[in-house]
Amino acid sequence: MQQVNGLKPSVREIVAQAAAHPAAVAESLRLVHPVEAIESLNHLEPKIAAGVVEHLPQEARTNLFNHPGLINGSAIMALLSHACAGPLLAELNPDRRAELFRHIDPERQEALREHLDPATRASIDRIMAYPTDSAGGIMTTEFVSMPANWTVEQGLAHIKEVGGARETVYAIYLLHQSDQTLQQAISLRQLVIADRKATVLSVANNRPPITVSPTTDREEVARLISRYDLLAVPVIDDARQVLGIVTVDDVIDAIVAEGTEDAQKFGGMEALDGPYMQIGMFDMIKKRAGWLAALFLSEMLTATAMQHYQVELEKAVVLTLFIPLIMSSGGNSGSQATSLIIRAIALRQVALKDWWKVAMRELPTGLILGALLGLIGFVRIVTWQKFGLYNYGPHWLLIAFTVAAALIGIVTFGSLTGSMLPFLMKRLGFDPASASAPFVATLVDVTGLVIYFSIAYAILKGTLL
Amino acid sequence: MQQVNGLKPSVREIVAQAAAHPAAVAESLRLVHPVEAIESLNHLEPKIAAGVVEHLPQEARTNLFNHPGLINGSAIMALLSHACAGPLLAELNPDRRAELFRHIDPERQEALREHLDPATRASIDRIMAYPTDSAGGIMTTEFVSMPANWTVEQGLAHIKEVGGARETVYAIYLLHQSDQTLQQAISLRQLVIADRKATVLSVANNRPPITVSPTTDREEVARLISRYDLLAVPVIDDARQVLGIVTVDDVIDAIVAEGTEDAQKFGGMEALDGPYMQIGMFDMIKKRAGWLAALFLSEMLTATAMQHYQVELEKAVVLTLFIPLIMSSGGNSGSQATSLIIRAIALRQVALKDWWKVAMRELPTGLILGALLGLIGFVRIVTWQKFGLYNYGPHWLLIAFTVAAALIGIVTFGSLTGSMLPFLMKRLGFDPASASAPFVATLVDVTGLVIYFSIAYAILKGTLL
Repeated sequence: MQQVNGLKPSVREIVAQAAAHPAAVAESLRLVHPVEAIESLNHLEPKIAAGVVEHLPQEARTNLFNHPGLINGSAIMALLSHACAGPLLAELNPDRRAELFRHIDPERQEALREHLDPATRASIDRIMAYPTDSAGGIMTTEFVSMPANWTVEQGLAHIKEVGGARETVYAIYLLHQSDQTLQQAISLRQLVIADRKATVLSVANNRPPITVSPTTDREEVARLISRYDLLAVPVIDDARQVLGIVTVDDVIDAIVAEGTEDAQKFGGMEALDGPYMQIGMFDMIKKRAGWLAALFLSEMLTATAMQHYQVELEKAVVLTLFIPLIMSSGGNSGSQATSLIIRAIALRQVALKDWWKVAMRELPTGLILGALLGLIGFVRIVTWQKFGLYNYGPHWLLIAFTVAAALIGIVTFGSLTGSMLPFLMKRLGFDPASASAPFVATLVDVTGLVIYFSIAYAILKGTLL
Repeated sequence: MQQVNGLKPSVREIVAQAAAHPAAVAESLRLVHPVEAIESLNHLEPKIAAGVVEHLPQEARTNLFNHPGLINGSAIMALLSHACAGPLLAELNPDRRAELFRHIDPERQEALREHLDPATRASIDRIMAYPTDSAGGIMTTEFVSMPANWTVEQGLAHIKEVGGARETVYAIYLLHQSDQTLQQAISLRQLVIADRKATVLSVANNRPPITVSPTTDREEVARLISRYDLLAVPVIDDARQVLGIVTVDDVIDAIVAEGTEDAQKFGGMEALDGPYMQIGMFDMIKKRAGWLAALFLSEMLTATAMQHYQVELEKAVVLTLFIPLIMSSGGNSGSQATSLIIRAIALRQVALKDWWKVAMRELPTGLILGALLGLIGFVRIVTWQKFGLYNYGPHWLLIAFTVAAALIGIVTFGSLTGSMLPFLMKRLGFDPASASAPFVATLVDVTGLVIYFSIAYAILKGTLL
């Protein structure tokens, strides 16, 4: 990093000084890269951070709060004086402004609302009307549009004039002159390389523009932007009026956020709202305890199943030796299949209607994987018996067959259950990623015990049982 | 979709006709959106697809092969005639070209190389010198640069001239006049809104540009682009010459690919190379069998542990009833902690050096979660006993205490192990995501049994044991 003026104040110094010398620290923040300034603010209590922000010039404030990396933005905003917060909100990018405003508590929202100009208030209300995971909830209402009959020359002059204030100028929306509805979308690149005398409409290709509605899921928006290599996608209402646009950087944030949510759900917990280290311990325990307890209650069925087989267990304690091995194999194969299918659904590689094709792939896959583990298990028992490492009793060969057969059955069942559960979740309207590894393992555990003891009963009846 | 000329053919029709009428199908492909044309090609055998591609005009070919959505690009390319493949390669975006070329088999690569002009060959070699998951491996060598002392007017004229051919024009690199090294980066937006008479250098802010080296990991590149909201980042060598740039759309692809890899690894398997439905069944089984067998072999230690406790097991069969319940709780809490930490490491929310802080969070978290499950387990045993649902024998209260204590121990151990394993993986140079849910479960299973029987022995010695 460049040294602009004297020594670059480190994040550590800024944090140490902020409470006692907010004005001096505000001065230092202006010397570092905005991303580092944000990092420093992220390390401060919101109250102390607000004290520093009050001493920043308006432009610096706007830049910092516009950046999604500022974690406590809403909390800091809520603690600013009205004289500071009002103009700041007016200056912010509309999407970021709505996001920050949304997380301020309702009472404070009301108080702040009074200090906003009507245009800002209207923009906030328009975006806040949609959920945060929809196109309407993440769109910005600042974009460049122009009548479709302008010349390229006029278009470039317009962008030169307003471009500094708009969040992005790389996608330009051409409106029908008559009713201001969306006619075409062009890129700044197309405009810059075009003949200055041509109309802006002639610059566009003749395909209809890709659009989304305000209620489109942000995952779907991300998929469209990535699929068509767009820099932004317009959000239009039923009358084809442009409400706003979703830009590629919002989409990256959305993709990363969805990935985190999916990973946490797949790990068997509710998704966290923030970075691991910033979440309060109590909040984190709450997010984890729910699923853990639910899984525990379901898993209690294993104890019930075992109680059911108590007579067999007492006759053949040797069978218990392999319970953990067999159950975990079912859980592992299920976890593989689930993670594969969750991801394939998220990337639209398979649709709900493909469940049957997937089942027809997972069935032979499970049988082959089960046969492989069955073989290893069989060899293990025979080896231990033959080399005198352990004595499985007179019926050791039958036990080996029981374990092998149970593994084939359970791994097949695990692969099938694991692959079908995400489809079922989606069908029921849940996130497929809720079909977590622990969830699948629990499902397979209970059934696995039943499979194991049924096979044992069939093979060992009359001898051991 | 717009109908340009006659009826728009569906993907299904295109696929059905392709083998028999490649020329007619090539004609129809030009009527649909390129993304749909690509979808159609993705459904064809590479040989048939190559037949169709041969009938396309050069420009349409280039557009299709430039799109990362074309799955079998390399296979189709390898089957094209030299007369078709040579000019196609010359026209493609350099990053896409190198990516396609990389996956053609070496013999065919050699044959194709002869038909390339020296500049194209040099560009391919330059990119292929770097691994696919590095900045050098995904960069494009086509970008806009200009001397830093040009005027904005000159800059815009230059972009108008070359902009159509360059992959992106939104990031512009200003070079020192003397040695052509990188001085500054500006955006097309800054250029368009600037005074036409000013120098391009005066348009830039005075911070040094964000750059990466060709060996920078693609995940790190994605993090930088997302953190600094860039449209592209330049890849420079030690002499600060610009080798190429990585653009935001490449980064989205990289983020999605890394997410898929991580999800599959976390599910307990090797990452697949392609979409679920396109991977051969045999390939998929290979990717899954390795980890499954390795986990199975490790899990065999549970059988060994159980054999070790055989005497206790025979004395107290009642203890076996809770083995699946206790073991799975350890696995579930471990899976939660692992998925949390893998994701936090991937997003740089925690660094390797934070392992101790994480451990100090997971220890109390595990104790509290364990106590919760222990309480539920205790209540369950007492309830069943009191209501006559099951008879755990005269020492039922001691058994309830054993189960509760074991749950506290195992959930704590699971949370700690699960959170520390990703750090250990990273420390050893592996991907933290290799610390999969099944891996953690297996680790916790074996130790969990030892914890359970040790606690049982301590509590029940002299009574049941």
